[in-house]
Amino acid sequence: MKALVKETAAPGFKLKDVPEPKIRDDEVLIRVRRAGVCGTDVHIYDWDAWASGRCKPPFTVGHEFAGDVVSVGRLVADVREGDRVTAEGHIVDGRCLLCRTGNAHVCPFTKIIGVDRDGCFAEYIAMPATNVWHLDDNVSFDVGGIHDPMGNAFHTALTAELAGATVLITGCGPIGIFAVGICKTAGASRVIATDVNETRLELARKMGATDAIRPEQAEAVIMAATDNLGVDVVLEMSGVPAAIHQALQLVRVGGRVQLLGIPSKKIEIDLAKEIIFKGLTLYGVVGRRMYQTWHQMTRFLRAGFDPTPVITHRFGLNEADAAIAAIKSGEAGKVIFEIA
Amino acid sequence: MKALVKETAAPGFKLKDVPEPKIRDDEVLIRVRRAGVCGTDVHIYDWDAWASGRCKPPFTVGHEFAGDVVSVGRLVADVREGDRVTAEGHIVDGRCLLCRTGNAHVCPFTKIIGVDRDGCFAEYIAMPATNVWHLDDNVSFDVGGIHDPMGNAFHTALTAELAGATVLITGCGPIGIFAVGICKTAGASRVIATDVNETRLELARKMGATDAIRPEQAEAVIMAATDNLGVDVVLEMSGVPAAIHQALQLVRVGGRVQLLGIPSKKIEIDLAKEIIFKGLTLYGVVGRRMYQTWHQMTRFLRAGFDPTPVITHRFGLNEADAAIAAIKSGEAGKVIFEIA
Amino acid sequence: MKALVKETAAPGFKLKDVPEPKIRDDEVLIRVRRAGVCGTDVHIYDWDAWASGRCKPPFTVGHEFAGDVVSVGRLVADVREGDRVTAEGHIVDGRCLLCRTGNAHVCPFTKIIGVDRDGCFAEYIAMPATNVWHLDDNVSFDVGGIHDPMGNAFHTALTAELAGATVLITGCGPIGIFAVGICKTAGASRVIATDVNETRLELARKMGATDAIRPEQAEAVIMAATDNLGVDVVLEMSGVPAAIHQALQLVRVGGRVQLLGIPSKKIEIDLAKEIIFKGLTLYGVVGRRMYQTWHQMTRFLRAGFDPTPVITHRFGLNEADAAIAAIKSGEAGKVIFEIA
Amino acid sequence: MKALVKETAAPGFKLKDVPEPKIRDDEVLIRVRRAGVCGTDVHIYDWDAWASGRCKPPFTVGHEFAGDVVSVGRLVADVREGDRVTAEGHIVDGRCLLCRTGNAHVCPFTKIIGVDRDGCFAEYIAMPATNVWHLDDNVSFDVGGIHDPMGNAFHTALTAELAGATVLITGCGPIGIFAVGICKTAGASRVIATDVNETRLELARKMGATDAIRPEQAEAVIMAATDNLGVDVVLEMSGVPAAIHQALQLVRVGGRVQLLGIPSKKIEIDLAKEIIFKGLTLYGVVGRRMYQTWHQMTRFLRAGFDPTPVITHRFGLNEADAAIAAIKSGEAGKVIFEIA
Repeated sequence: MKALVKETAAPGFKLKDVPEPKIRDDEVLIRVRRAGVCGTDVHIYDWDAWASGRCKPPFTVGHEFAGDVVSVGRLVADVREGDRVTAEGHIVDGRCLLCRTGNAHVCPFTKIIGVDRDGCFAEYIAMPATNVWHLDDNVSFDVGGIHDPMGNAFHTALTAELAGATVLITGCGPIGIFAVGICKTAGASRVIATDVNETRLELARKMGATDAIRPEQAEAVIMAATDNLGVDVVLEMSGVPAAIHQALQLVRVGGRVQLLGIPSKKIEIDLAKEIIFKGLTLYGVVGRRMYQTWHQMTRFLRAGFDPTPVITHRFGLNEADAAIAAIKSGEAGKVIFEIA
Repeated sequence: MKALVKETAAPGFKLKDVPEPKIRDDEVLIRVRRAGVCGTDVHIYDWDAWASGRCKPPFTVGHEFAGDVVSVGRLVADVREGDRVTAEGHIVDGRCLLCRTGNAHVCPFTKIIGVDRDGCFAEYIAMPATNVWHLDDNVSFDVGGIHDPMGNAFHTALTAELAGATVLITGCGPIGIFAVGICKTAGASRVIATDVNETRLELARKMGATDAIRPEQAEAVIMAATDNLGVDVVLEMSGVPAAIHQALQLVRVGGRVQLLGIPSKKIEIDLAKEIIFKGLTLYGVVGRRMYQTWHQMTRFLRAGFDPTPVITHRFGLNEADAAIAAIKSGEAGKVIFEIA
Repeated sequence: MKALVKETAAPGFKLKDVPEPKIRDDEVLIRVRRAGVCGTDVHIYDWDAWASGRCKPPFTVGHEFAGDVVSVGRLVADVREGDRVTAEGHIVDGRCLLCRTGNAHVCPFTKIIGVDRDGCFAEYIAMPATNVWHLDDNVSFDVGGIHDPMGNAFHTALTAELAGATVLITGCGPIGIFAVGICKTAGASRVIATDVNETRLELARKMGATDAIRPEQAEAVIMAATDNLGVDVVLEMSGVPAAIHQALQLVRVGGRVQLLGIPSKKIEIDLAKEIIFKGLTLYGVVGRRMYQTWHQMTRFLRAGFDPTPVITHRFGLNEADAAIAAIKSGEAGKVIFEIA
Repeated sequence: MKALVKETAAPGFKLKDVPEPKIRDDEVLIRVRRAGVCGTDVHIYDWDAWASGRCKPPFTVGHEFAGDVVSVGRLVADVREGDRVTAEGHIVDGRCLLCRTGNAHVCPFTKIIGVDRDGCFAEYIAMPATNVWHLDDNVSFDVGGIHDPMGNAFHTALTAELAGATVLITGCGPIGIFAVGICKTAGASRVIATDVNETRLELARKMGATDAIRPEQAEAVIMAATDNLGVDVVLEMSGVPAAIHQALQLVRVGGRVQLLGIPSKKIEIDLAKEIIFKGLTLYGVVGRRMYQTWHQMTRFLRAGFDPTPVITHRFGLNEADAAIAAIKSGEAGKVIFEIA
C-alpha cells in the first residue's frame, strides 16, 4: 500500500509502497479515508530536537484519521467490517495507576500512532479495538478525520467551567478555532479570540467568537468587558511566550488557565506576580480524556455542532510537502489528506 | 402606600393602605415596578398547612420584584438613589457556618421577604443593601422582576454538568421553562421537557426544548435517544409524585437528579431500586447560590439569554384574585404585577 | 473441587464436589484461601424475593475472596502463577458509556461472581485478569479476603469530604465499622456511630469512633457537638427505615448523605422537609470505584490502616449454616471462610 | 500604647508610643496577647523591593495575632467584650465578583493589616467584626496567634485530595511544618518533607513526616515509594527555584502542585516538559479561604491537632531585631511575640 514514511533521521517525508499492516487478535484493520495533518507532523517532517529525541525511523507518520473497517481480529466483539470509525491515537497500557483512575490520557506507557508506531498517512492502519470510536451515520469522514485535534479542544475547553464565563482563547490555529465554537455552544457569555493572522481571526468569527482580535487589542477589550478584572478562563493555544504572559495577565484573580500550546523553549515566569498572588489554577492539557472527551464530541455533533468551517486545505498523500507548507504559512485552518 | 396584605390567618389577600417602610442605616428603600407571583404566594393566599405553620399575619406578601432606589441608609456605599435593581429575597445572618462556607442559600437563620417579613407586593420595600442586585441598563423591569424564580432555575440547572448532556425537565411551570432555555444555552445536547398542559409545552418549545411532550411519551423518546440508558440529568420541577418516580426511572445509572418541585405530601420511594442500585446523586435545590447564581444570570442576560417569552400574564395590584387564579389554572407561564 | 452451591430455587447452600473451573485466554485461575460472607449471601441462602428474581441456580456462591494464582491464560501479561491476589467481583463490559467515563461501578452489563456466575466459596475460581488486584507482601489473606466489603466502605466514605468533618455512621455492621476507621484516618473531626447491638458498638470503638451509641442517643450527642446544626456527612449503612429518617434529620442543611444500606421495602419520605428544604445531596453507593477505590485501599493499608479487628468469626466451607447464622445474629463483625 | 512601627522608607522597625486605635461602629478593639512574626514582616523590616513598592510608612507592622476583646462598636452583634479571638487579616470589600462567589481570599480590593493599614505588633488593634474569629476555650493564645500562617497551610493542603495520597512538601518553614501535620491527619499515606536545615527537618519529624530529608535525597525516596511515578501532590513551601523545579519533576503525571512559596525573582520554566506534557494542575495559594479554612482549623484543633511544636522562639516587642534575626537564621519554626 501507499504510505507517507519518515524514512531516515533527516527532514522530509517519503511516499512509499509498504506492506499492509497485519492485525493482532484484538486489533482491527481500517481503510483510511481522511487524515488530519498536525503541528506534531511538522516537527517530525522538520526533524527538530523533539522529533529526533523521540521518534525512531523508519515509520509511517500521521495520527488523526477516519475510515472504514476492513477486517477484525478474532477477539474483537464490538467492531465489525464496514463500520465507519475514527480512533484515539494514544495506545495505553490500561493497567497503571493513571489508566485505572481515570487518567489514561497521561498513561506513562503511552504509544502514539505515527510517533511511536506506524501511523495513518497510509491506505490502511491497524488499531487496537479498544481505541476505535464509531462515527454516527451523519458524521462525514472529513469530520471523523479531525476528531483527534477537535478532542484536544474539547478537553481543553470542557475541563473549565464555561457556562456564563468570559473566555480568552490565545491562538487561532485549528484547535483554538474549534475551542471558540465549543465555548460558545457551552454557554460562555463572551469569547475573545486572539491571533496575529487575519485569515485565522476570520475563521474564529465564523465559529462564533464575540471578539476576534489581534493580541495587542486584547487588554482593552477584556478590561472593558470585565470591570477591569480580566476573564474567568484562558485557553492558551499558541505556545508563544508573549501569549502565555498575556494569558496570565488577562485572566482574573482566582481564574483558570488551560495550557495546550507548546512553547519551543523555556520561558521566564514571575511565579509570584503572574500565578501565586493571583490565586490562579493552571492545567496542562494532554490528549483527550479517555473516553469522556470522545462522548462529549459525539454529543456536541449530535446536537448540531459543526466543525467543518475549520477545514481549509485538502491534499493527496502525494502532496505532503504542500500540506506541510500550508500549515507553516500560518494561514491555514485544518489541513487534511484525502486518501480514499 | 398601597400593599397586598395577608391580614389574618385565613385565605385571601387584601389591598390596603399601609405606612411606607422605614429603612435602617444599612438598608435601601426601593420603589417596586414589577413583582412576580409565585406558587409560594398561592400557598399563603390559600392559607394551607405550610403557610399557617410558617407565616404570622399581618404582613405584606411577595418576594420577587424589581424597581428603582429612592433612598439609601447612612452606611450604604454601593447603592445609590435612582439605581435600577432587583434583590435576593433571602435575608441571611452572614455569620453562621453555612453563610461562611459558601452555603448562605441554606442559612438556618434566613428570613424571607413576603413570608417572614414584609414583602414586595407594595409600592415600596425596604431591603438590606447587601441583598440588592443591580440591573444592567438594557435589562427591563419585567426581567428584573423575575430574577428570583429565574435564579431558582439557574441554580437547579447549573449545579449539574450540562455541556453535552441529555436532560429531562419534568414540569413546565415558569421555573421549568426557564430551565429549558438555560440548559440549551449551556450546551445540553438534548432537552426533553414534560408537562400535562399543552400551553406550557408550547412555552417550553419557544425556549428551545428538543422535545416538549406529555409524561407518558417520555420513556419512549428518552430510551430511543440514549441507547436505552436514560438521561444524564433530570431537573424535577413539578413536585408531582408520578413525575418524581419517572425522574428516578428515566435518569441513567450514575446520573443526577435535581429536586426543586415540592411535593405536597410524603412519597413512597423504593430507595434500593430507584436510587441506591442506580448509583444516583440527588440534590435538593433551595433558593439561589448567593451570589454565584446572580452573577450567572447577569452573564447569561448579557450574552443574549431572553426569558421574556415565559411572562404570560400581567395584572395590577388590585387584581390579586385574578393573578392567583391564573397560576392555579395551570395554563400560565410567569404571572407578574405591574405596580409603577 | 469442593464448592458451596446454590443448587435449586430453595433456601440453603449445599457443599458439593464440582469440576474445577476452566479459564479463558484472558482469565486466571485462583486458589481461594479466604472468602468473606456477606448480607447478599444471606439473601441467596434464604432465597428471598430479590435472590429468586435475580439468580439462576445452580451456581457456586460467594464474591469476596483472596488467594494465590495457580494458572494464567495465554493473553494475560500482568498476573503470574504464585501471585497473591484478591479481585473486583463486578465483571463489566468495559465499552459502555459508564465504563468509558469512569463509572464502571454502575455498568448496566455487570455480572457479579457468586450472583450471576460461579463465585468464590470454592477451592478455585476463574477470574478475568483485568479484575485481579495484587496484594502487598505484608497484607494477609484475611485482609485480602475482605477487600470487597472494605471497598464498599472506602467508596462510601471517600466520596464525601471528610477532612475536619463531623460524620454520623448509622449501622455498625462490618461495612459501617470499616467506615469508622476510614473516616478517622481521613481526618474526620468527630465520628458518631450508631447501632442497636453493643458488640458492634464495641467494634466501632475499637476502630476509633468518637461516640459509639444507640440511635436514640444520637440526636442529643450530635446537636451538642454541632451548634445544633447537625453533622456534615452521614454514611447510612443499615437500610433500616428509622435510621434513614434519622440520617436525614441529623445531617445539617447543605450536608451530604451517602446511602449504602439497602432497605427491604419502600419507605415513605417527606421529600420537601427531609431533603429539598435542607438543600441536601444524596449519593447511592454501588460497589467500588474501578479502580480508584482499590488504589485508596492499598494506600491506606500501606500507611498502617488495620481492618483486622472487624473480623470476628471464622468457619470452614462445611460450616455454611453456622456462618449464615452468625451474620443473622446481629452480633458479628466480618464472618469469613478459611478455605486453604 | 507600645507599637512596632515602620516609621520611614528604610530598614528596621521602631518600638514607639502611639495612640490607641479608635474603632468604627462595625469594629472591635482587641488587646493583643500573642503575635506571630512572618516572612512578610522580614521583607518590610528589610525594606526590599516588594515592601517599598507596596507599603506606605508610617504604620504599625504585624498581621498574625490573638487576644481578647476590650470594646465593640455600636453595630457589632456577635462579638462581646472579653471574647478570646484571633482574626483574618485580609480586609476585603465583600461586594466584588470574587467576594460574592466564594473567592474573597483574592478580592482585588483587599487591605492587609500590618501591610496596608496598622497591624498587630502593638498592645491593641482595631478589627472589623466580620474578620474576628472566636477561639475555643481550650485553644491557647499561643495557638490563636498563629492561626494566620497555620491557615495558609490548611488552605494549601486541604485544596488537594489528601486521603491516601503521597505528598511531597518542599520547604520546612513554619507553614511547611504545619502542613506536614495537616497532611498526616487528613490521611495522606506518605508525607515526604524536604529542607536543607536539620533543625527544621526535626520539627517536620515531630509533626509526623514519614520522611524528613534533604532535597538531594528526595528523588530516590519518592521513586522507590511510588513505582517510579512520583507523588500525587506537592506542596511547594519554599519559593526556592531548585525546589520548584524539583516539585515539578517529582510530582507524577496528572498530579497537583500547590504553590505557596514566593520566589524572589523570575524563574525559567520548561512549560512543555515540566507542566503541559505531564498534565499537571498548579494552584497558587493566597491567604485563607474565607471562612472555610477557618472552620477547618477549628475542627482540626477540636479533634486534637496540635501545632505547638512548631513554635520555637518567643520574644517581647522590644526584641524585634532578635525576632527577625531568628527567622533569618533558617533555624526557626514559628517565632512569636508575647505582648500581654
